[in-house]
Amino acid sequence: MYGKFLVEGDKSVRELLHSVFKIDAIYGLSGWVERYHSQSFEMHAVSPAELAELSTHEQPDEVVAIASVPAPTDTKLSPSGLYIACDRLNDPGNAGTIIRIADWFGAGAVIFSENSVDVYNPKVVSSAKGSLFRIPVIYADLPGLLSDNNTLAVIGTYMDGESIYSTKLPASGILLIGNEANGIGEELAGMVSQRVSIPAFGKAESLNAGVATGILMSEWRRQLS
Amino acid sequence: MYGKFLVEGDKSVRELLHSVFKIDAIYGLSGWVERYHSQSFEMHAVSPAELAELSTHEQPDEVVAIASVPAPTDTKLSPSGLYIACDRLNDPGNAGTIIRIADWFGAGAVIFSENSVDVYNPKVVSSAKGSLFRIPVIYADLPGLLSDNNTLAVIGTYMDGESIYSTKLPASGILLIGNEANGIGEELAGMVSQRVSIPAFGKAESLNAGVATGILMSEWRRQLS
Repeated sequence: MYGKFLVEGDKSVRELLHSVFKIDAIYGLSGWVERYHSQSFEMHAVSPAELAELSTHEQPDEVVAIASVPAPTDTKLSPSGLYIACDRLNDPGNAGTIIRIADWFGAGAVIFSENSVDVYNPKVVSSAKGSLFRIPVIYADLPGLLSDNNTLAVIGTYMDGESIYSTKLPASGILLIGNEANGIGEELAGMVSQRVSIPAFGKAESLNAGVATGILMSEWRRQLS
Repeated sequence: MYGKFLVEGDKSVRELLHSVFKIDAIYGLSGWVERYHSQSFEMHAVSPAELAELSTHEQPDEVVAIASVPAPTDTKLSPSGLYIACDRLNDPGNAGTIIRIADWFGAGAVIFSENSVDVYNPKVVSSAKGSLFRIPVIYADLPGLLSDNNTLAVIGTYMDGESIYSTKLPASGILLIGNEANGIGEELAGMVSQRVSIPAFGKAESLNAGVATGILMSEWRRQLS
């Protein structure tokens, strides 16, 4: 289904109904279709067995929808915004979690390098919990996008970066998250204006990319608030 | 395999070798077994097909090990420690992520209510990335454990709690994380000494339990550092 993606489960589909996304069709159990019946959407009542065929979940949750991937968002960023950019992010769960974090902390968009995971993959859609329908997602050549928006500071996480507890974070900018295994790529490293780290107090080698993003966004908002 | 659990992949098995956990047997591809040969452990060279039979991963990573679940840890907590307790935590990925966060921020242990997910489940072992071998895990009747350790403050997260950016967190205590869908249970609510919240700046309804735990532990350490 080129240009289409699957949204699964009661909660996500209801958030989709209230979004600006174009919905192609909805397939729900008869109870669900009666409850949310609307003239605006093409809704089909299906049996539990038919729903199971359409769903990627072992235990489908009442309904799935087919939506259209939105047209690419403008890559000109606001000079006063807070953004998250991901360099070669691989894991669908991390991508969804990061989109949800962006929505919680009011980021302007999440930008993915072109070789990152596809955010319209059902696992990303699930883990984003509806935030995918509210937060603009941009796929871009990251070095190009950063140089087109070079008035924005770029914050990158490094093991030897300055502690986020003692460094002053900028009033606006782009938080750059590296690949899960290899961190921030070489081509991008030179475009990082501020190298930071999350202090460690134990023996873990690293934090999960989603958790690190949450900690960094929270500390950024704390300093600005 | 009652009392036994599976550890999968090169990195996790190597961390297991350096832990105090009892290892029953190791099954690795011949190259792995030659590389890490040791008199102290029973190591078996297996074919890729045999490894695939033993592994829960679609693409097994060189080796799996069978380890023994450790004897229960003492439930008497240190009055000066930082702890994480989870009330009916369901998701294996969240449990592993929280154990890894505990290891990063130097928590004394992670305590799970008895009806939480089994941390010796292969998905938890995977997502904990070796931290399961370093951080003590306690399964306990949570209300009983909290009242046995009632000199420790209990920090609970609530939508209407005081902002962690303006509240003063205690010098030691237990961070209590609620169930993914239902939050902190009623029986425990009365034992919470400090109700806090992570401020929201956007429209997401909630944060993932692992991400919330990371943000809270980071802010706690920041205030104490």
